[in-house]
Parts: sequence; structure tokens; C-alpha cells
Amino acid sequence: MKMLINVAETVVADALRGMAAAHPELMVDIENRVIVRRDAPVAGKVGLVSGGGSGHEPLHGGFVGPGMLDAACPGEVFTSPVPDQMVRAAAAVDSGKGVLFIVKNYTGDVLNFDMAAELAEDEGVQIAKVLVNDDVAVTDSLYTAGRRGTGATLFVEKIASAAAEEGAPLDRVAALARQVNESSRSFGVALSACTTPAKGGPTFDLPAGELELGVGIHGEPGRERRAMMTSHEIADFAVDAVLEELRTDNPVLVLVNGMGATPLLELYGFAAEVHRVLGEREVVVAHTLVGNYVTSLDMAGASVTLCRVDEELLRLWNAPVRTAGLRWGC
Amino acid sequence: MKMLINVAETVVADALRGMAAAHPELMVDIENRVIVRRDAPVAGKVGLVSGGGSGHEPLHGGFVGPGMLDAACPGEVFTSPVPDQMVRAAAAVDSGKGVLFIVKNYTGDVLNFDMAAELAEDEGVQIAKVLVNDDVAVTDSLYTAGRRGTGATLFVEKIASAAAEEGAPLDRVAALARQVNESSRSFGVALSACTTPAKGGPTFDLPAGELELGVGIHGEPGRERRAMMTSHEIADFAVDAVLEELRTDNPVLVLVNGMGATPLLELYGFAAEVHRVLGEREVVVAHTLVGNYVTSLDMAGASVTLCRVDEELLRLWNAPVRTAGLRWGC
Repeated sequence: MKMLINVAETVVADALRGMAAAHPELMVDIENRVIVRRDAPVAGKVGLVSGGGSGHEPLHGGFVGPGMLDAACPGEVFTSPVPDQMVRAAAAVDSGKGVLFIVKNYTGDVLNFDMAAELAEDEGVQIAKVLVNDDVAVTDSLYTAGRRGTGATLFVEKIASAAAEEGAPLDRVAALARQVNESSRSFGVALSACTTPAKGGPTFDLPAGELELGVGIHGEPGRERRAMMTSHEIADFAVDAVLEELRTDNPVLVLVNGMGATPLLELYGFAAEVHRVLGEREVVVAHTLVGNYVTSLDMAGASVTLCRVDEELLRLWNAPVRTAGLRWGC
Repeated sequence: MKMLINVAETVVADALRGMAAAHPELMVDIENRVIVRRDAPVAGKVGLVSGGGSGHEPLHGGFVGPGMLDAACPGEVFTSPVPDQMVRAAAAVDSGKGVLFIVKNYTGDVLNFDMAAELAEDEGVQIAKVLVNDDVAVTDSLYTAGRRGTGATLFVEKIASAAAEEGAPLDRVAALARQVNESSRSFGVALSACTTPAKGGPTFDLPAGELELGVGIHGEPGRERRAMMTSHEIADFAVDAVLEELRTDNPVLVLVNGMGATPLLELYGFAAEVHRVLGEREVVVAHTLVGNYVTSLDMAGASVTLCRVDEELLRLWNAPVRTAGLRWGC
């Protein structure tokens, strides 16, 4: 596989140089791999920090800015960042009101954020943590005990951050983040494998004419492989898999997320099918987001995340946000 | 190639259904294939209409909204829309101040927009046209006499629309659009071919280990094929090809545009190399945009567009815009 890179070893550092060049509103510490909003710490505000392996952009670095994360810690491709990054991020964004770590449920991330929380607290920063584990496809996957964390991360980061911007204290911001995670479920499909720079070829074998139902965002195996399905059939399968574990009378936020290589033209067509199924299941949609938000490098495919919202969560969702990857209202 | 679609024949209609579902702020006429901002016509404002073959999303439908296009006309994949769409769009957005057609330089688009201009004027709508032809790679290509229109379309649409929002008359909006086009040049590279739904396979053969320098946004041949190059080398080649035809002492806007399947991680790394070359050539950067804006379905690769700006163009560039694909300041 051809890639638009120099060498595999510098892919993350090169991308951070590009982020620094394109986004003067961010402080990008290339050496220590921490991306911080330039006005941090924001006086009186709880800080929000997330991070994880690179290769899922715009997650997380593209979600740093007013109304969303205060800082992000990018690891190597598909590899957890290290505790030192998270401790630096926490110190950079703590205004004295404490810091929330938003952690996707992968073993490496969980261990490293746990260690970072202890270290940061030793340095006098109050830390709370929320674990994101929304992927209904499988429990106990390649890098995960329990459910994997995927698209819900965007909802958790956006909604909890909006509360923090309004001055909510750490325990409230953390409780909201947990509520959003518990109210969100996801299901993804792969039409092709992704290619990591280190491997230089597909990370798994997916035969021509088959798709992977329930794939993880690192190409982890899902529930089953089937002969290629239509957008209509995939939407039925994915939405029903999510609704099986997310009963709701409330409206939902919908994320129709591209895995990276699927054209926006196809994603919008898929979004139409997702809306059709939701209508048939009498689920009311409050807002729909279509695009590449939680990606898997050059994987073709898509995921659906639903987030059940009450008036308060919807209000926080709609609050202004100004980041590279998500922006409205300001 | 697997695609997230139902059947090739409904790909564009399905995508429009998805746009309608996800963007209640737009009026999406699925049958007649016209996307119009909901508050059109805006009293006292010149209308801006563009369009072209589908497969380049978010261009053009994703650029409809306050501060950018009033309407877009999507054709079939890689196929010009028909005059009837453009006439409908013009009628829907004309407030009496006239309408500017923004046309990428492909033979079909040029002919159809010309015919639509005549028909719309017969119906009493004053029409001006601007041709976008920024691609320096080749002259006289597969679907084009002269240079092809690519990434500069985004700059033309954004900057001319900002002037229209301020109340500039049609001749001024058209003159600005021409100025932006004349001040913009692009160069693209392909690492892989794209797959059209109708064909179901790659639209051209690009051997493993080679890239196409100067590719068009439909996979049209460029200047030459070479053995795969590094991001550093590609940036040197692309930026120098642009600067060869765009001498400037003024700052430039930079678009580092993904062709569709290239991960954002790689695009940001490439953006770093583009900035490096520009620095070495002593070109000052006013603003940089990195992402998938003028795509070619699932093609892997990227293009670089530079737009030379004076204070007025930069001010109009920075003015608020609220569309699905580009949004800031409001």
C-alpha cells in the first residue's frame, strides 16, 4: 500500500507539525505529544483531557478547542499514549477545578490513564475518569475487556465539555459524561481493512465480496462476515444491533461515521438508510452528523452511533463548539 | 470494489435523501436535484449557484448556506448537471439582484451552464458566469479544453459569496470571483485510482509502487508517473509546480486537500511538508485548510491549492460561513 508519508517512524510527529502549522489556535507540543487549546487553563473551568492511539483523526486532537476538549494526547498509530503525556496535559489545563480524563475502553489506554491519574493527583490535580464503552458488536475484543469505545466518544467529549464551559463542577461534568456514555451505543462495519504505516499492508484479510459486521476501529474482528450487503441491509443490521441494547422513548443524536476511505457521497446515502430504519422503528431523531469523525486510517466502511438525549443533554449538544473537527454556534 | 450503496443507479438520489435528513437547514429537491439554502432568495443579495458532477463531496452541496453558495446542482457521478437544474436553482435564489454561476472548466459543465444562462435570462434572471481553471498540471485534458477547475473552486465560492452577503452588486461579485480564480493555482497527485459506482472498479490503472503527478479530480492523466515518492518529495514537486505559475509577494491561503481515501493523519503530515516548502520559497501563509474538500470518491492522494490574497480577499475569506462542509465565525 502506498501512503502519503515520509517514513513510518515519523508519521505522528509529522502530523503534529501539520496541526501546528494549520491551527495557530492550538498549542501543539510536538516533542511531548500534547495538543492544548491556547487559552488553557481557562479560569474556573474543569479541564477535559482525552487521548488514544493515532489513526482515528479528527479524534482526539481535532476536538480540542472552546466547547470541547482542553487537551488531547496522541499515541503512536493504534497505540495508547503514555502516562507522561496525560500528566502534562492535566497540568496544562487544570485551573484548580480538576480534570476529567475521557478514556476509550482499550486495555492500554485504561492502564495508562489510571497511572496518569495517580501521578497527576500526586502533583495536586484532582482527577475524575470516564470510560467510554459503547460498541455493542462484541464483548472482550482484541485489545479490550468488555465493550470497545468508539463513536460515543464524540458525544461524551462534546456534551461533558459544554457543561464544563458553563461552570459545572468536576463531579457534575463526570456524571454527565457517564450518562452520555450509558445513553450511547455503536455498531460498525468494514468493507476493507486498514493499513498501518508500520505494517505497510492490510491489518487483516477481508475477502473480496465480503464485509465484516461489527468491526472495531483498529480492525478488530466483529460478529460475523457475510457476503457483501446493500446500504439498506447494512443500515437495518447496524441500527437494530444498536437498538437491541438502547431502548428509548427519547429522541436520539445520530452519528453516521465514516471509517476513513468511504466517500461522503456513500456516507450520505447510508445516512438516508439509517434514517429510514429509525423511522420504521419509531425512533425520533434530534440531530444527525454525517462524516469522518472517528476513523480507522484508510478503512472503508461506516459506523452508526445513537445517543439518547433529554432536554438538558440536547441543549449541551447544541452549545457552541469551535474545534478543527467539529464547529458550530461560534 | 465494495461500496456502501444500494445500486449504482440511485447513488446520487440516495445521497440527497441523506443530505435532506441530516441538514434541515437546506431545501433539498431530490427529484429535480437542486440544493438551496432555506432562506433563499435573500432580499437584496446576489445569488451564487454552482454545481458539477457528484463524487467530489462536500463540493458543491456541502458548501450551500449563509456566507457561501445559495444553491448547488449535483449531476450524476462525474457527469455535468443539466441546464434545467441550473435554471431552477437560479430562479430559487434570485432576489432580483442577479445570479452568479460558478463553473469548473469541464466541457460538459461549461456547455450546460451556458445554456442555462440563456434560459434563465429568458426568464428575466440576470446571470454572470465565472470559469474556474486553476489546475496547472496540464492543459487540454480528458474532459477539458484549457486548464481544469479543481481546488480553487472552494476559494472562489467562499470569497465571492462573502462579498455578496455584504451587498456587493453582481458585476462586483463576478469580478471578485474572477480575481480569486486568477489568483489561485492547484496541483494534485494520486496514489490510487477512484472507483465509480457505475463502473464498480478502478477508473484507471496505477501500478503498485507508482503515483500519478498532476492527476485530475476524475482520475484524468497528469504530467507523469513516477516511482512512489515521500511526502517531502511530493510537497516539493506540487508546491513548485504551483509557484511556477503563481508568483506572489502577497500572503497565500493554502488548501491541503484530500482526494477522499487518504487518512487525515497523512494529510496533516503532508501539510507540514507543504508549509516547509513554502517557508523555503519565502511565501507567507495567511491561513491553511487541511481536509477532504474537493474529493474524487475513494481516490487516495492529495492536492495543493494556493490563493494569493490582498487585505480585501483575506477579509472576505475570514467572514462568517455556515455550511455542512465549511463553517466558522457564526
